[in-house]
Amino acid sequence: MRAVGLIAEYNPFHNGHLHHLQAAKRLSRADAVVVVMSGNFTQRGEPAVIDKWTRTRMALLNGADLVVELPLVFVVQPADRFANGALTILHDLQISDLVFGAEHPEWDFAALVAAEKQFQQAAFQNYDQTYATQFNQQLEAVTGHSLRDPNDILAFTYYKKVIHEKWPLHLHAIQRRGSDYHDLHINGHIASASAIREALVKGNDALVKQAVPATTWSLLKDLQQVPAMDQLFMILRNHLIQAPASQLAKTYSMAEGLENRLKQAASRSLDFKSLMHQAKTKRYTYAHLLRLFLYLCLEATQDQVDWTIKHPYIRLLGFNQRGQAYLHQVKKDLSLPLITKVDQTLHNGLLDLDYRAGKLYQNFTNDEQDLKRAPIMELSSKDR
Amino acid sequence: MRAVGLIAEYNPFHNGHLHHLQAAKRLSRADAVVVVMSGNFTQRGEPAVIDKWTRTRMALLNGADLVVELPLVFVVQPADRFANGALTILHDLQISDLVFGAEHPEWDFAALVAAEKQFQQAAFQNYDQTYATQFNQQLEAVTGHSLRDPNDILAFTYYKKVIHEKWPLHLHAIQRRGSDYHDLHINGHIASASAIREALVKGNDALVKQAVPATTWSLLKDLQQVPAMDQLFMILRNHLIQAPASQLAKTYSMAEGLENRLKQAASRSLDFKSLMHQAKTKRYTYAHLLRLFLYLCLEATQDQVDWTIKHPYIRLLGFNQRGQAYLHQVKKDLSLPLITKVDQTLHNGLLDLDYRAGKLYQNFTNDEQDLKRAPIMELSSKDR
Repeated sequence: MRAVGLIAEYNPFHNGHLHHLQAAKRLSRADAVVVVMSGNFTQRGEPAVIDKWTRTRMALLNGADLVVELPLVFVVQPADRFANGALTILHDLQISDLVFGAEHPEWDFAALVAAEKQFQQAAFQNYDQTYATQFNQQLEAVTGHSLRDPNDILAFTYYKKVIHEKWPLHLHAIQRRGSDYHDLHINGHIASASAIREALVKGNDALVKQAVPATTWSLLKDLQQVPAMDQLFMILRNHLIQAPASQLAKTYSMAEGLENRLKQAASRSLDFKSLMHQAKTKRYTYAHLLRLFLYLCLEATQDQVDWTIKHPYIRLLGFNQRGQAYLHQVKKDLSLPLITKVDQTLHNGLLDLDYRAGKLYQNFTNDEQDLKRAPIMELSSKDR
Repeated sequence: MRAVGLIAEYNPFHNGHLHHLQAAKRLSRADAVVVVMSGNFTQRGEPAVIDKWTRTRMALLNGADLVVELPLVFVVQPADRFANGALTILHDLQISDLVFGAEHPEWDFAALVAAEKQFQQAAFQNYDQTYATQFNQQLEAVTGHSLRDPNDILAFTYYKKVIHEKWPLHLHAIQRRGSDYHDLHINGHIASASAIREALVKGNDALVKQAVPATTWSLLKDLQQVPAMDQLFMILRNHLIQAPASQLAKTYSMAEGLENRLKQAASRSLDFKSLMHQAKTKRYTYAHLLRLFLYLCLEATQDQVDWTIKHPYIRLLGFNQRGQAYLHQVKKDLSLPLITKVDQTLHNGLLDLDYRAGKLYQNFTNDEQDLKRAPIMELSSKDR
């Protein structure tokens, strides 16, 4: 059996994801679809609209054969680190192909990666400009292209990693369909996940319903409240106020001195919006702060996260018969630990941060997220 | 001018407090009444029903002339430490008399204190019994009395401290009036503070109204929600789950190994009641845990609290003209720092924990509790 890999958040699984999944099967002609998916928190550092088990079910009901969880320390990261973490896990699962969306799938990404060798390091000494800006100036000078769109950046990251590691992996960039990620309006049957989340928050059921498969809708329709970071504000504010600055400084991804700014902002804020407003600067962007806020809620230190990044694992969330057969085939050659069930030892060790994230997510849903949860077996997978 | 001192929580100020205050004036014939009062959290480790400023106003409107705050580190303690802390502050304010309730005001408390010298230390080696039990066995053997009632225990504590320090302070034990502290029913015009709080929670306005002075009622009647520890559950549970056991172990008053028990209880609890139920044992009582839970919410370490206990201060909450005159008279001889307004330096130093407690209390009320708050000047104090 051969497998094609997908990297996803499925927050929630929508028609665009379905198209992507079907294109992946078509392009790769693989026997099985392996998905590595964010858990209960997403790349932006926010809680997913619905928990990882339900999102796994959505994926299995729509063509995925095997779903594994991307550990939180790879998820809650800038996109390139997210991509590298996910790729590492998929590679260990011995996928033969990776299919991903890009704004410019026609570009020769391998050539863009090669162009980096011609960059002049001296040109990176301009501290008035971000690294990304200077990188793009160089890239444009050499190739005529520049990486400005989020999925193009990810595509570049995949190519770079695969070329660097010399992995025998076929990369397929496909056109990203439908609305732009930032488009908050739903037009027709394709809408961005963020547009769907926005509609969920507003209770626009009709809009959600037409943008997601029926199976997704049946799992979403009873959602009482859409989880959001501002519901954790009490926890976040209190930790910023009560913990000494010296301890806050040890939080993962805390920039030097930022702890004092956040401490003051927390003292003066009575809601999430105000805290964010007071903390944000050109240097500390919304995206960076949002991820940092999650690490603060988790009281996660630089040391803990660094250690966890160095100890990846494959956490099984769900599979159907085809996925089970594929897993059986590759199991013996895995170099990473395969985790199917979380016990006391695991949640105090390897899975500590994911376990704690699950406990944090329990503020939105009462369901235990890890202990005693068995992977979902979707035995009624539809025939292809 | 001479002043009589009172130690109180006024949570809230009720008719029993009014009687006590009037008896204090009568007995001591003092010119001014000085009250040292808990701040926003009480001896039990719970949030007060209404903030310290409103409770100060209640006291000033009912005969108190000067109100100072007992720092949190003295408040959230077993009763004897609370009493000692309060007495230290009142003594520095040069009160000539202290009036307090006792279940047995007719006892010769000075004699009970003296009896301690005849105790046999060897008898305290029985580890099957609590210190309090063994103490009472000894006391009964020597004097025929034993300290079983909470206010008798406090009375003993006052005498012991005053005798030990040789302070020239007149102590007056008076009969505690009306309902027992634990009595949750309101009969007539005297009711315990806990009975009144219970009535407040249940919205039994008529019962509250008849048990408190009209001025208290006018300040209580618009209370939207009675603050309670279970409203801080999200904060408490998260810190217990996310902080490493080694860090939790440093929390003030954390018994050895209890951090692991609490960590496990927090992981398994989705509400305050369940957490308390799982944590409680014969050894870790409800009262002890409740105070510890507050210190956990404050992320207060043993070192921080110990330091603060060693650095007491007099925090002015309010006064009338008589109180102002009295303060003017004793001001130059104070040995403790007198704090009238909290600025940046203070809230990072001496007042750090009280400031943080005020920020925690903001979860119940949006009002800033310390920064830029001036003492209440009640210039319309009623004539006596």
